[in-house]
Amino acid sequence: MTNNAPTASLIIIGNEILSGRTQDQNLNYIAGNLSDIGIKFMEVRVIPDIEEDIIKTVNELRSRFDYVFTTGGIGPTHDDITSDSIAKAFAVENIQNQDAYDKLRAFYQEDLNDGRLKMTRVPQGARLIENPISAAPGFCIENVYVMAGIPNVMQAMFDNIKGALKTGDPILSKEIKRYVSESKIAACLSQVQDKYNDVEIGSYPFIQDNKIGVSIVLRSSDKGSLGKVFDELNEKL
Amino acid sequence: MTNNAPTASLIIIGNEILSGRTQDQNLNYIAGNLSDIGIKFMEVRVIPDIEEDIIKTVNELRSRFDYVFTTGGIGPTHDDITSDSIAKAFAVENIQNQDAYDKLRAFYQEDLNDGRLKMTRVPQGARLIENPISAAPGFCIENVYVMAGIPNVMQAMFDNIKGALKTGDPILSKEIKRYVSESKIAACLSQVQDKYNDVEIGSYPFIQDNKIGVSIVLRSSDKGSLGKVFDELNEKL
Repeated sequence: MTNNAPTASLIIIGNEILSGRTQDQNLNYIAGNLSDIGIKFMEVRVIPDIEEDIIKTVNELRSRFDYVFTTGGIGPTHDDITSDSIAKAFAVENIQNQDAYDKLRAFYQEDLNDGRLKMTRVPQGARLIENPISAAPGFCIENVYVMAGIPNVMQAMFDNIKGALKTGDPILSKEIKRYVSESKIAACLSQVQDKYNDVEIGSYPFIQDNKIGVSIVLRSSDKGSLGKVFDELNEKL
Repeated sequence: MTNNAPTASLIIIGNEILSGRTQDQNLNYIAGNLSDIGIKFMEVRVIPDIEEDIIKTVNELRSRFDYVFTTGGIGPTHDDITSDSIAKAFAVENIQNQDAYDKLRAFYQEDLNDGRLKMTRVPQGARLIENPISAAPGFCIENVYVMAGIPNVMQAMFDNIKGALKTGDPILSKEIKRYVSESKIAACLSQVQDKYNDVEIGSYPFIQDNKIGVSIVLRSSDKGSLGKVFDELNEKL
């Protein structure tokens, strides 16, 4: 892996994830996309809709990682407190943004009620993240990117910001599958891992058609090393 | 919600989740089960297979919450470092456990190779968590419960420990569905939420059959309050 790759973390904000009501789908989408553009995804937190928790978590992670993404809590109802909390984390006001107002006015016309007006407020100094699905924007303040929790809206927002992120060398991967018990190849994997520190070797057991197997996943931003480890393991296993 | 309910957190340990290769399924299973037995699920962290990160995260969370669950990294290969790391977090040795050895010997017979022997090591003072699927046990040390990452093994382990956890009043929930835009009922929800602080009201928009709708989820450990809020919202909405 490259050492100078940008780093990122994700904060999933939402009681519905912690109650078991909703299965999160955003982590996996963001993970795959960051991998493609060579950003090292280092940590995820799932926290409740509690202002103090949001402030503390955002402030800790934004000082540790190049990027912090958040999902959830930017809708129109009383339990959507992300925007207010992020403003407090940055010690700025959460104010109506004219551009957000214009977008929602155009989208909802006469139907721009108080709930929707709430979604025009963003922390002072934030830039909007466009939402082509339902107009209410996300926003970015310094290195913190605040997105919706609904997967298709989150994905559209992420696709809008992805191009402007600093990238590293894409992380390439190769996979070797063997119908063998993981423990029988453990020593061999360990030997090869010790030889190559720029390739990460992961071992993931599975059961398919009632047979035990293992997926060996190789990840590296160095194509040459990746190929070398792939060939060596293919021969040895 | 009850204030004296036990609290819990989960640490998902695994590069495969952060790389996007694997969609986690354990969070949702644990969340639903904790809710059923009245344990407040307060935080989840997803971290890589890095010793320093595991030690730091375990030590932080075990001091903050009544229970810490971990998933992943207790298999036979070089990238399975959870057991060693937890031992270091507790400043104890990671040693071969005779009971674990006997279980794996009985399960694998002559096939108890070095990889499998690795899975007989647990931190000194830990108690085993039985694994009815593939024998290699999880373990519990103080308030930290260390389980496998493979969902069916994790679930079997969790089911084995669940009965011995301190519980709170079960968290009951009711749901109201309306085909209406979330923003139109935001003010009403907010008013009702302000009146009842022992019922958590969550609002989750959805799209079904091309129609916009919203699920109002009420959660409380007080059946009476839950019923009252349910009736009041049903009438108002």
